[in-house]
Amino acid sequence: MAALVVQKYGGSSVADATKIKHVARRVARERDAGSDLVVVVSAMGDTTDHLLDLAASITDEPDAREMDLLLATGEHISGTLVAMALQAIGVPAISLTGAQAGIRTDTTHGKARIANVDPSRVREEIARGKVVIVAGFQGSTGDEHRTGEVTTLGRGGSDTTAVALAARLQADRCEIYTDVEGIYTTDPRVVPDARLLPVIGYEEMLEMAQQGAQVMQTRAVELGWVNGVVIAVRSTFSDHPGTLIKEVSAMELRDKVRGVALDRKVAKVTLVGVPDRPGIARGIFDPLAAAGISVDMIVQNVGHAGTTDLSFTVPAVELPRTRKIIEPIVKAEGFRDLVTADDVAKISIVGAGIQNAPGYAARMFGALADAGVNIGMISTSDIRITCIIPSADLDRAARALHAAFRLEAPEAVEGGVGRV
Amino acid sequence: MAALVVQKYGGSSVADATKIKHVARRVARERDAGSDLVVVVSAMGDTTDHLLDLAASITDEPDAREMDLLLATGEHISGTLVAMALQAIGVPAISLTGAQAGIRTDTTHGKARIANVDPSRVREEIARGKVVIVAGFQGSTGDEHRTGEVTTLGRGGSDTTAVALAARLQADRCEIYTDVEGIYTTDPRVVPDARLLPVIGYEEMLEMAQQGAQVMQTRAVELGWVNGVVIAVRSTFSDHPGTLIKEVSAMELRDKVRGVALDRKVAKVTLVGVPDRPGIARGIFDPLAAAGISVDMIVQNVGHAGTTDLSFTVPAVELPRTRKIIEPIVKAEGFRDLVTADDVAKISIVGAGIQNAPGYAARMFGALADAGVNIGMISTSDIRITCIIPSADLDRAARALHAAFRLEAPEAVEGGVGRV
Repeated sequence: MAALVVQKYGGSSVADATKIKHVARRVARERDAGSDLVVVVSAMGDTTDHLLDLAASITDEPDAREMDLLLATGEHISGTLVAMALQAIGVPAISLTGAQAGIRTDTTHGKARIANVDPSRVREEIARGKVVIVAGFQGSTGDEHRTGEVTTLGRGGSDTTAVALAARLQADRCEIYTDVEGIYTTDPRVVPDARLLPVIGYEEMLEMAQQGAQVMQTRAVELGWVNGVVIAVRSTFSDHPGTLIKEVSAMELRDKVRGVALDRKVAKVTLVGVPDRPGIARGIFDPLAAAGISVDMIVQNVGHAGTTDLSFTVPAVELPRTRKIIEPIVKAEGFRDLVTADDVAKISIVGAGIQNAPGYAARMFGALADAGVNIGMISTSDIRITCIIPSADLDRAARALHAAFRLEAPEAVEGGVGRV
Repeated sequence: MAALVVQKYGGSSVADATKIKHVARRVARERDAGSDLVVVVSAMGDTTDHLLDLAASITDEPDAREMDLLLATGEHISGTLVAMALQAIGVPAISLTGAQAGIRTDTTHGKARIANVDPSRVREEIARGKVVIVAGFQGSTGDEHRTGEVTTLGRGGSDTTAVALAARLQADRCEIYTDVEGIYTTDPRVVPDARLLPVIGYEEMLEMAQQGAQVMQTRAVELGWVNGVVIAVRSTFSDHPGTLIKEVSAMELRDKVRGVALDRKVAKVTLVGVPDRPGIARGIFDPLAAAGISVDMIVQNVGHAGTTDLSFTVPAVELPRTRKIIEPIVKAEGFRDLVTADDVAKISIVGAGIQNAPGYAARMFGALADAGVNIGMISTSDIRITCIIPSADLDRAARALHAAFRLEAPEAVEGGVGRV
């Protein structure tokens, strides 16, 4: 039986006709090698931004349902063009919308979650000998009994589409093609001797992604983890094997920093003089959650005189909405002050088991201090230590940490690339 | 009960954000007057051409199914933007794809015919107090039991969508909004004293449309005729009542020329020395029909020596494909020659009953002769006389016929605009 391969090509990989033809040849090559293929595509280059601009030219507050129907067209366009490019070189192909591909979601427009995947149509088309192109980033609330609403999965949702399909179809491989060679120890544009990681564990990747590594969407990694889908992150424009995201066995769990994650797009919100009584935190974070604003680090400082200071971070782009929601609460509850800053950045060291091993936090803080970087907030997880620092210091901090943990040096024992 | 109005806005009416907002205000005004509204939209301005260019940059022979999925995005985009524009001025609105609006078609991609309309979703949304925006030009082969294929109805198919919805919903009015004030006696760009017709019969309109009047698609007029839908053709940018297309009562049937239809985009094909035996014509026209090329006028000249000359016209844009199909037949059957010309045009006089009244043909040929215009081919129907003439003479011929039949003069008895 032929191997089933799910490939996903990002927007930069299908940005124009030349690149689409390149993708078609790449897909054809995999098919010539005997594989069945499901190819998930994002919208071409800046199509999504163009559609967002169109909506913005009409209204400041576009309806989420209409927005989804609008944005979903981007992947319909790239999908049909990739199918045509394949047909033009003699490869039978068909493009499916998210709904046609059986991607069923909940009704949360703009950030829908995949409820289940009905793989029947995709399987049918594969059985007919076709390469199946699937419009990424989208789904439908409908099922086989009714025409539903078009939903989108949020930015980067095409990764999630690919991993969900790979899981449901029990694909032999799941490959995420992008414009970089794979996952690096840190952003190579900031640290020139950043090193490509041949393998990274799901949890490590999750922390890297959450902390700002833009290559893959967090949800897609989670979905891969839960379903045991081994994900290869590779370049569309080279034959480098890239990075495998997979379960790293206990034997391989070394107390070692794997990467330095950077996130420039952070805002810090501090509530000064918050009464120290139950229910206050919920009164602040419930409305933010309801508005779909993801609060990241939360730090409560030691209180005095019955009040405390509460700080948290949100994506920088959400700061105006956050202020709009928080300001009335600050007034109503009589907090002393609301201080916000959008000139901060987040830097994290990530590595399975580093919290169990002593000294990593101290070494991180020491390296930052030596580089003259002031730390604003600290938070930790099992496999990550994160500091909020001034935006202006981020590049310097990244180079300092990359050097301090010797990330440029190849690891002695590395999960083998060929062992999937 | 509120009146139900179906309005259709063409591509030039929703070409940019400013025009979309204008359309929204126009729709809002109708709604304020107490009507329920279904609004069918075409793709914005040159979106369809842009999508065709994209496909052409990938392949010369795009698959019809993929093409439909690609082109249908144009109306999704304009539909969502019109819905957003309405919401922005406080009018509850929702946009539906063709599939969501229940437009079920056959499977002829690129030229699908509407099989039936399931109005349940549209009715539901109207009952919820919403203006329902429907993506024109498209449908779906699916039904309530399965996610079907996206189909398109061919160029201008949005008119057909509007008339089909008006028929199925038993709308009180069906209004086609465009960038001209209505149907004129002839092209006002060619004949400055062309006159707007307050009323035109379905059959007359059909002949006008078929013979080159670009304002409305033939199929939409047919559908209106069969279902008795009175269609108002009006300008998006003025309050002029426009032209009503409706059943013209026998009393109103005057043997009078109503209009001069022009079609510049014609090619003439002549087969010289065709053996005069049964089955020959079928051998020529069956393959053209199979290729979806619509043959218009067919004239067979008097034969000599057992052969005849056979001429017909096709849309100019189809001439290359027509030659490709006909050339092998000419060789195989041993015809003497194949002669084609794309520098010809079609001019017609249209009017209910003119064939029953004597002298119209003679007056037409006389007027053309006086203007020095040479007639290449002639064909007639009950309500139309058509001549093929050199393209270069078309404008002159139009002015001559318009004057000869005194079309600039208002008619004494005109079907009343207010009587619908």
